[in-house]
Amino acid sequence: MFEEKLVLGNLFDFYGNLLTDKQQEIFRYYIIDDLSLGEIAEELNISRQAVYDTFKRSKKVLEGYETKLGLLDKFNINNKNIDTALAILKGLKATITINDSDKDYLVKIDKVMNLLVEILDIS
Amino acid sequence: MFEEKLVLGNLFDFYGNLLTDKQQEIFRYYIIDDLSLGEIAEELNISRQAVYDTFKRSKKVLEGYETKLGLLDKFNINNKNIDTALAILKGLKATITINDSDKDYLVKIDKVMNLLVEILDIS
Repeated sequence: MFEEKLVLGNLFDFYGNLLTDKQQEIFRYYIIDDLSLGEIAEELNISRQAVYDTFKRSKKVLEGYETKLGLLDKFNINNKNIDTALAILKGLKATITINDSDKDYLVKIDKVMNLLVEILDIS
Repeated sequence: MFEEKLVLGNLFDFYGNLLTDKQQEIFRYYIIDDLSLGEIAEELNISRQAVYDTFKRSKKVLEGYETKLGLLDKFNINNKNIDTALAILKGLKATITINDSDKDYLVKIDKVMNLLVEILDIS
């Protein structure tokens, strides 16, 4: 269940703006704020069933966009590559013996690492 | 005009699957294959005006998705970072003097570069 909420949270990050305001509100309460359907119903003064139906519909809409576009999948693959690249660079920094003439070597590796971390932050 | 076609081509890569089959067909002819509206009209046996209207509508749909989601914009920023990272790594490879004990240094830098190039290929 936690895993599912994580996936839905990512889908929402990507495609959430394509939902209606009401759908977004309920989705946010349920997935991001982790309220129960009953709590959301109380909060919005509507029936639990209405909350459930809206959530189910929103989920279907988001999954439909990912099926058609696959952009989240692309992002995930890219981020995995970046994680791997960062791990290699970190290892490199830790082990290499550098000459005095190469003292800006570490600065450059750090620059690259910062650029890659920035990408993970944007995603 | 060329610049505009490039941008529209990128939008189409991202969101094209959200267009109808007919919209996709006309968009592809016009933007990817670089046919004129007249040529497309002839190819599909419809009026030039119908081709133009469909294209205009498709363009608006694609731009609407980008306005709401901004995913192409994100990808472009990320790719710029990756280009910069690759340039730094390339420079590093060319200039650094390494000790014998660090001979797998270049192999590792190459691994990182390959991972980053893969990301550009996927995008």
